[in-house]
Amino acid sequence: MTMSQSILETFPNPAPHRNYVIHHSTPEFTSVCPITGMPDFATIELEYIPDEKCIELKSLKFYYHSFRNEGIFYEAVTNRLLDELSGVCNPRWMQVTGRFAVRGGIGSVITVETGSKPE
Amino acid sequence: MTMSQSILETFPNPAPHRNYVIHHSTPEFTSVCPITGMPDFATIELEYIPDEKCIELKSLKFYYHSFRNEGIFYEAVTNRLLDELSGVCNPRWMQVTGRFAVRGGIGSVITVETGSKPE
Amino acid sequence: MTMSQSILETFPNPAPHRNYVIHHSTPEFTSVCPITGMPDFATIELEYIPDEKCIELKSLKFYYHSFRNEGIFYEAVTNRLLDELSGVCNPRWMQVTGRFAVRGGIGSVITVETGSKPE
Amino acid sequence: MTMSQSILETFPNPAPHRNYVIHHSTPEFTSVCPITGMPDFATIELEYIPDEKCIELKSLKFYYHSFRNEGIFYEAVTNRLLDELSGVCNPRWMQVTGRFAVRGGIGSVITVETGSKPE
Amino acid sequence: MTMSQSILETFPNPAPHRNYVIHHSTPEFTSVCPITGMPDFATIELEYIPDEKCIELKSLKFYYHSFRNEGIFYEAVTNRLLDELSGVCNPRWMQVTGRFAVRGGIGSVITVETGSKPE
Amino acid sequence: MTMSQSILETFPNPAPHRNYVIHHSTPEFTSVCPITGMPDFATIELEYIPDEKCIELKSLKFYYHSFRNEGIFYEAVTNRLLDELSGVCNPRWMQVTGRFAVRGGIGSVITVETGSKPE
Amino acid sequence: MTMSQSILETFPNPAPHRNYVIHHSTPEFTSVCPITGMPDFATIELEYIPDEKCIELKSLKFYYHSFRNEGIFYEAVTNRLLDELSGVCNPRWMQVTGRFAVRGGIGSVITVETGSKPE
Amino acid sequence: MTMSQSILETFPNPAPHRNYVIHHSTPEFTSVCPITGMPDFATIELEYIPDEKCIELKSLKFYYHSFRNEGIFYEAVTNRLLDELSGVCNPRWMQVTGRFAVRGGIGSVITVETGSKPE
Amino acid sequence: MTMSQSILETFPNPAPHRNYVIHHSTPEFTSVCPITGMPDFATIELEYIPDEKCIELKSLKFYYHSFRNEGIFYEAVTNRLLDELSGVCNPRWMQVTGRFAVRGGIGSVITVETGSKPE
Amino acid sequence: MTMSQSILETFPNPAPHRNYVIHHSTPEFTSVCPITGMPDFATIELEYIPDEKCIELKSLKFYYHSFRNEGIFYEAVTNRLLDELSGVCNPRWMQVTGRFAVRGGIGSVITVETGSKPE
Repeated sequence: MTMSQSILETFPNPAPHRNYVIHHSTPEFTSVCPITGMPDFATIELEYIPDEKCIELKSLKFYYHSFRNEGIFYEAVTNRLLDELSGVCNPRWMQVTGRFAVRGGIGSVITVETGSKPE
Repeated sequence: MTMSQSILETFPNPAPHRNYVIHHSTPEFTSVCPITGMPDFATIELEYIPDEKCIELKSLKFYYHSFRNEGIFYEAVTNRLLDELSGVCNPRWMQVTGRFAVRGGIGSVITVETGSKPE
Repeated sequence: MTMSQSILETFPNPAPHRNYVIHHSTPEFTSVCPITGMPDFATIELEYIPDEKCIELKSLKFYYHSFRNEGIFYEAVTNRLLDELSGVCNPRWMQVTGRFAVRGGIGSVITVETGSKPE
Repeated sequence: MTMSQSILETFPNPAPHRNYVIHHSTPEFTSVCPITGMPDFATIELEYIPDEKCIELKSLKFYYHSFRNEGIFYEAVTNRLLDELSGVCNPRWMQVTGRFAVRGGIGSVITVETGSKPE
Repeated sequence: MTMSQSILETFPNPAPHRNYVIHHSTPEFTSVCPITGMPDFATIELEYIPDEKCIELKSLKFYYHSFRNEGIFYEAVTNRLLDELSGVCNPRWMQVTGRFAVRGGIGSVITVETGSKPE
Repeated sequence: MTMSQSILETFPNPAPHRNYVIHHSTPEFTSVCPITGMPDFATIELEYIPDEKCIELKSLKFYYHSFRNEGIFYEAVTNRLLDELSGVCNPRWMQVTGRFAVRGGIGSVITVETGSKPE
Repeated sequence: MTMSQSILETFPNPAPHRNYVIHHSTPEFTSVCPITGMPDFATIELEYIPDEKCIELKSLKFYYHSFRNEGIFYEAVTNRLLDELSGVCNPRWMQVTGRFAVRGGIGSVITVETGSKPE
Repeated sequence: MTMSQSILETFPNPAPHRNYVIHHSTPEFTSVCPITGMPDFATIELEYIPDEKCIELKSLKFYYHSFRNEGIFYEAVTNRLLDELSGVCNPRWMQVTGRFAVRGGIGSVITVETGSKPE
Repeated sequence: MTMSQSILETFPNPAPHRNYVIHHSTPEFTSVCPITGMPDFATIELEYIPDEKCIELKSLKFYYHSFRNEGIFYEAVTNRLLDELSGVCNPRWMQVTGRFAVRGGIGSVITVETGSKPE
Repeated sequence: MTMSQSILETFPNPAPHRNYVIHHSTPEFTSVCPITGMPDFATIELEYIPDEKCIELKSLKFYYHSFRNEGIFYEAVTNRLLDELSGVCNPRWMQVTGRFAVRGGIGSVITVETGSKPE
């Protein structure tokens, strides 16, 4: 378990007998470009179908804030969010979308998923 | 039958020979956080394909209002709405979506369904 | 043929050799609640793939207006619109959507179809 | 000082030498209709030019929540919000706007102000 | 007092010591064209600064519905709404705006006011 | 009186004792570029305060259509609309706005008025 | 080849080895109602997968303008556009959508396609 | 007269007896940053009240294109546009607004005017 | 001069003979709540009429970023931005607007200005 | 490798073990019409599933700028962008969408893809 993962808390899924989707969205994510040291800003969308555990909302907020001074690229941070978030709750399916603010006239969206979403 | 379920009334489906979708949406749902005691606010979308019974609209309003002082988590309340609403009308398919107001910079949407939607 | 159906006129489909979609949408539909006698308001979307006949637009307007003083529930009126409209033109596929104005803080959408839409 | 007013806290205006506008907006206000006992929902916009005191944000949230089970009309509650909020901070100018959810097909907005806004 | 005016009820202004604006808006107004007999549809915005009396919301709904089978032109109905509504509550200022649905490719808005709005 | 003006009809203002605004808006105006012969398209907004006469809506539609094959520049046509429309009804104030579709990457709006609008 | 078809020009598809979609959209289409002689207005969306030929953009503009004084119904004109446009370029797939302006309170959309769109 | 000004053409104002506003807007303006050599992009809004001359639309397009390889700062280019455009037509009033695309997370709008706008 | 002010650079106003408005807007501002230590997020709008100096855009970006780890309240930070930004360029007029993200269901906007804006 | 391709740089995919989507969008693309010499403007959307290499964002910006003085048609440039961008990074799937500004009243969108997108 990574240090940032240890911030995350879970609680038992109240309805493990069915597949259902939990979607948490925040426009308040910021990290740092590892080359220029300048801040990056993103909206992060987290969607998952829980198995036995759900992610506790307040700990999710603290987890996101732990990236505030982290130097990391768009593609790497979105994949790491997926790895760490799915690592603590073992969901049936999870998708993370990072919508990064415009740099050099170009806006970027990275979409990563694990598991397969039941129809 | 739970106490809040007893508020709900039904009437006979006027077209049981076909599959069709009824969608009721309200931005006026509020319950209470069981930990902090602070109010939560949500828009609730109810969609279903009726079998023999339809849910009466006025009783649905009273049913939603019965959660006003209930202490209950997002995931739990959305699953309970589905269980109780499907319990009184036995639909061919039903989906409940709870869009919860921003807390800690994070907005949450929980989507729960039962039965399978005919194409 | 019902009395309101007799208002509807049709004309020969100018392209019966192909499947294509005709969509008529009006925000100007009003009927009356059979219990309270208060007016209901809806936007009606009519979509269909014609077979041999198309519905004439002006007669469709008069047909909708014939519901102005009719006392009828949401689910019933949307199914009746489908039955009567498909009854006069025998389409390959037809769908009627009624988007009803907010009552008691709840907005309602009823979606009814007949036949199966070719892909 | 009323009981609900006693919930409100203030802090010293950090820039009393200039006129500037503070605007707090919440879609999470609910009270009760004194006749029907049914809940009302509103978005409340509070705008003011502080004199010596500013209203503390967290106490404002608790103050709004204190109306949750209060039976009070639209016009009365908007005027009372203005009286109580201006009463605790004596602003140079204050305006309260209540945007109430649709009832009987009619949406209502009440706008109340005290003092005159410097140009 | 006209017959439709007799539908309207008032209640005492809870804050007659100050000028403040009450705004009621409804998309559910319909009357009839006196020439063609075809229905007209409008959104009606009523804004006023009350003096001693406020207009009761439920009676306002019934008052609007009384125009359902009335044959009357856009300009005439908007002026009549102003005359009758101001007649029952003697406001310090009142404005009525009728936003009429498109006819012949042309949408129309009629804006009528009485008294002068204090700055 | 010009030939196109002779299409316009008026009716007596039902409320000449007060100043009020009539606004007719159509996205269905088309004329022809006098140089290239290519069609131009515009949304025309007509706003006026009537004196003794109002412009009849159906005749206004026919009047706009009379420009369909007219070769005329943006600035000229907007001024001519104002001259002809104000010429037939002698309003207390009138404004015509022409919002012309993009040509060469540039969209154009011409706004012309006559008389002065009472506050 | 029809007279209006003869206006259309084509150029060789620069990438015939792959399936790709070309979409041209114009809000500047107008024809005439064959019964009333009144103008109709539409937005036309043309989408196709070219085979050996692409439609030249300037000639497409002239082709659309050739309908300006044509008397033709919605369903007929949309089918004719598809027949003529596909006739000159023999696409692998083509779809024409006509979004016609509101008449009698009803807006209409006709969607016609030929060939089958590769996934 | 500058070289770029010589691109601009004018025609006589068809209605010099009245004050009216001409507004041309283009999202297709691009110049070059004089320090980095990287392209800048802007939407340019030109509004003016003509006196004796109006700016011809096609020449305006060519004039804007003449900045394509010009190295010039936001504040300087917006002022130069105003100087050159007003220089060729001597308007009663003119305003130029440059809305520049985001650089470094910051969007910029420069608004420059000459003369005073008649009320 | 404060330490953060020393980050800001200026350049000579290219058009000091006229009053014109420069508007820089960024959604990428973040500071820290001095009580909870949790991050705050805001959109900052800076508008000013320059006198002799303009603020250089890249240095403005660095200046904003210098607040990233600063613990400061909404009202205080908005006033400080105005003091420091106006302090380095002595504008004829300046306004700073801070639009802060929702906390406790309440969104906040602080608007501060110095000098008086010429009409 | 073409000259413009040589501008593009890549970096190793940080998560080659999974399929995920990278989407870069820019409204700042401009080239030149090969017939008229007039500038064209487009928004370019690039979406791909990387295999071993990702496209470096800053080099992508320079690559797009290299088309600034290139004379090339819509269909050709969109296909060339796909060929060159996929050529340097060999993605599992790639799609390029060019949304070109209105010319002659017609807006155009070209959508080109290579490989097949995993579900």
